[in-house]
Amino acid sequence: MISFDDAFDRVLQHTLDFGDETVTLLKSTGRVLSEDIKADRDFPPFNRSTKDGIAVAFTAIEKGITRFKIEGVLSAGMPQQTLSTDTNCLEIMTGAVLPEQADTIIMYEETEIKDSWASITKTPKKGQNIHRQGTDEREGAILLEKGTEITAAVIGVLASVGKKDVIVKKLPKICVVSTGNELVEIDETPLPHQIRKSNSLSLYAALEKVKITPTLLHIADDKSIIEKELEQALSKFDVLMLSGGVSKGKFDFIPDALDKLGIAKVFHRVAQRPGKPFWFGVQKEKQKVVFSFPGNPVSTFANYHVYFLPWLKKSLGVEVKKQSVILDEPIQPHPLLTLFVQVTSQWHEGELIAKTIKGNGSGDLVSLALADGFICVAQGDKEIASGTVLDFIKAS
Amino acid sequence: MISFDDAFDRVLQHTLDFGDETVTLLKSTGRVLSEDIKADRDFPPFNRSTKDGIAVAFTAIEKGITRFKIEGVLSAGMPQQTLSTDTNCLEIMTGAVLPEQADTIIMYEETEIKDSWASITKTPKKGQNIHRQGTDEREGAILLEKGTEITAAVIGVLASVGKKDVIVKKLPKICVVSTGNELVEIDETPLPHQIRKSNSLSLYAALEKVKITPTLLHIADDKSIIEKELEQALSKFDVLMLSGGVSKGKFDFIPDALDKLGIAKVFHRVAQRPGKPFWFGVQKEKQKVVFSFPGNPVSTFANYHVYFLPWLKKSLGVEVKKQSVILDEPIQPHPLLTLFVQVTSQWHEGELIAKTIKGNGSGDLVSLALADGFICVAQGDKEIASGTVLDFIKAS
Repeated sequence: MISFDDAFDRVLQHTLDFGDETVTLLKSTGRVLSEDIKADRDFPPFNRSTKDGIAVAFTAIEKGITRFKIEGVLSAGMPQQTLSTDTNCLEIMTGAVLPEQADTIIMYEETEIKDSWASITKTPKKGQNIHRQGTDEREGAILLEKGTEITAAVIGVLASVGKKDVIVKKLPKICVVSTGNELVEIDETPLPHQIRKSNSLSLYAALEKVKITPTLLHIADDKSIIEKELEQALSKFDVLMLSGGVSKGKFDFIPDALDKLGIAKVFHRVAQRPGKPFWFGVQKEKQKVVFSFPGNPVSTFANYHVYFLPWLKKSLGVEVKKQSVILDEPIQPHPLLTLFVQVTSQWHEGELIAKTIKGNGSGDLVSLALADGFICVAQGDKEIASGTVLDFIKAS
Repeated sequence: MISFDDAFDRVLQHTLDFGDETVTLLKSTGRVLSEDIKADRDFPPFNRSTKDGIAVAFTAIEKGITRFKIEGVLSAGMPQQTLSTDTNCLEIMTGAVLPEQADTIIMYEETEIKDSWASITKTPKKGQNIHRQGTDEREGAILLEKGTEITAAVIGVLASVGKKDVIVKKLPKICVVSTGNELVEIDETPLPHQIRKSNSLSLYAALEKVKITPTLLHIADDKSIIEKELEQALSKFDVLMLSGGVSKGKFDFIPDALDKLGIAKVFHRVAQRPGKPFWFGVQKEKQKVVFSFPGNPVSTFANYHVYFLPWLKKSLGVEVKKQSVILDEPIQPHPLLTLFVQVTSQWHEGELIAKTIKGNGSGDLVSLALADGFICVAQGDKEIASGTVLDFIKAS
C-alpha cells in the first residue's frame, strides 16, 4: 500500500499524448487548443467609433468652431469616407470607421442637431471616443496560446480571426468497464441480492462533461471472459476505466487478468478512504492506461475526480489548478489514511466554506448526489480545527 | 435609463415555464429534474457486506469460539444463503448478502485461513462490517427533489432506482440573432471596414453549456427585412437573443421593430457599463422573451451572464446561488453606473481573489478570453478598498 501523495504523483507521471485533430469551430468548445492563435490583422482593424455622434477634425475645435454642417451619416459596415472640410462633420454610428480628415468623435448627448447642422454643447478632447486600430492587438500577435481551454469567450476570438477549423488536442478513447455479477441493467427489476448498474453511468455522464463519450462494457465475474474482453478492449481503447473487481475478494480477477495482458501494475491499494483498493497500470509501448476503481459508487466517483481528471488535464497540456476550501467544523483525520470527505460548499464573503455530509460510508449513493465535492484530509492524529484550509476536489 | 438592480429584478419577474419532457437517462445530464425521485426499495436493498472476510454468528464469539469451519464462499450477486450452524462460517465478499443466521463480518486481515478453517486474530464487535438494509434510505423515501440539477452523481442515483427515462424541465427554444452590415462570416476575408461575426458564435457555445442548441440567424440592417425576419423568429422560438442594433444610432431599427411586433418593452438602457443599451421585452400571452444585447462582444457576454443565466435558472426552478470574490487591489466605482469589470480569479487559502484585467474597454475581445468572469461594482463615489468582497459572475 502506498501513500496518496505517492499514488497521485505516479498517476501524473504516466500521462499520454493522444496527438491533435482538426474540428470545426462550433465543435471545439470545451476542447484544448493545440495551436497558437495569431491576429490575422490589427484589432480593431480600423479606427473604430465607440459612440453614436459626430466625427469632426480637432483643428476646427482649436479654431473655435462649435457648429458644423452635416455632410452625411456613417454606419458600421460602410467603407471609410473622407470629411471634405473641417468646418463640416459626419454623423457616425458605433462600430463605424473614423473618416479620413476627422480625428475626434462627439457623442449625440453633447450635441444639438437641427436642419443638417450640429452644434456642440461641450468642448471635446482631441481623439476622444475612438477605439484606435491595433490598440488591442497588432497583426501577427499571439492572441491565444496552445494549451488554452476553449471557452465561449475563446470561441469569439477564434471566430474573429476566421478559424473555421481549429486544431485541438485529441481526446483519449475510453472504455468504461463494469464488473460484478450482482449488477443488472437499469431497465431490469433487480432480485433481492442484485442491484442496478450505476457507476458506469455516472462515469459516462462525468466524462461527457470533459467532451469524451466513452463506450460502456459489462463483463461477468468469470476469469476467462474477463481476460478475453479486457484484451479486446485494450486493443481498441487508450484508457480502460474499470469499477469493481479490485478488492481482495476471491472473485476479483481483474488485477491478474491485466497483468497477463501486459499491463504493468504501477500500484494497487492506496492509503486512502474511500477508494483504497485502487489499481493503476500502464502499457508504455502501446500507450495504454488502466484506472481500476473499487466497485462502490463513492470510491469510484472520488477516484475519478482525484486521479483521472488531473491526469487527463496534464495529458492535454492544461494546467491543473488547485482549489481550496475552509472547514466549517472540526474534523478528525485518520492516523494512516488520507480521507476524501464529501462536503457541500457555500460562498460566504469571498470564502468557500465546506460542510461535511454525514453519509453512510462508501456505499451511500444518495449523499454523493448532494455533495459539491470532496475535501482532502491528510492522515494524522490531531483533530483539524474549524477554519482550517483544505484542498477541495469539486464534483463534476 | 433604469438602475442595474431594477433591471435585474424586472428580468427575473418575467421568467417563463416551458413545461416538461421525458428524456432517456444518459441524455438527462445537465438538465433539471421535473419529478421527485423515490427509492423503489430499501437502500441498500439487503444487509450488505462492506469487507472481504468471513461471516459468523456472534453467539459463537460469545461462547468463546475463535476457529470456524468454512462452509462456502459468498460473492456479490449470489442470492442470500444460510449459515447452517454457529460453529461454522461463510467466506463473504464485499457487496454480498449477509447470510441468514450470521450477523457479524470479520475481514480477512483479522483472520488466518488454513485447510477450510478460519481462525480469528481479533475479537469482533457484534454487527460489524455490515451496511444494513435501508440505513441509507427507506423504500418510498424521496431521494432527489424536483428542481435538482442532474449531475454525474445524480445520474448514479437515477440509475440505481431504474429511471431509464427521466422527466426534466423543457428548455426554451432560442434564436440567436446577429445584426450589423459590418459583419461577415468566419470563413470570409473581411474588407478593411468589416469584421467577422463573433458574438453569435460565443453565445452558441455558452448556450451549449446549458444544454441549449440555439439557431443562428443573421439579419441585415434594413428596417423591413428586420421586421419580417423577427416576426418569423418570434413565431418559432421562445426566446430571441439579439446582439447589436439597440444603441441610439440612426441604423438601430430593432427596438421599433420589436414594438411593432407586439413585444412590450420592459426597459431599454441600464445604468451599467458595459452593456448599457440593453433592451428587454416580453410578449406575455404568447410567452416570448427578447434579450437584445448591445453589439460589442464584452457587453453581450457580460449581459448574457448577468441577466440571461439567472433568468434561465429561475425559469427552470433552480436556485440561483450568488458567488463572491475578494478584490486584490482598490477600484474606483463609477458615480452613476454599475460596472462589470473583467477579472481573473485565483484560489488562496480558501478565498477566491479577483485581479482586474486591464482591457481596452468593451470592444476588446481578447481580454474577455483571459477573464474568469466579472465583478459587479455598484455605482458610488468612494474608492473601494483592496480586500472588499464583491459579487462575482463566473464566465461560462
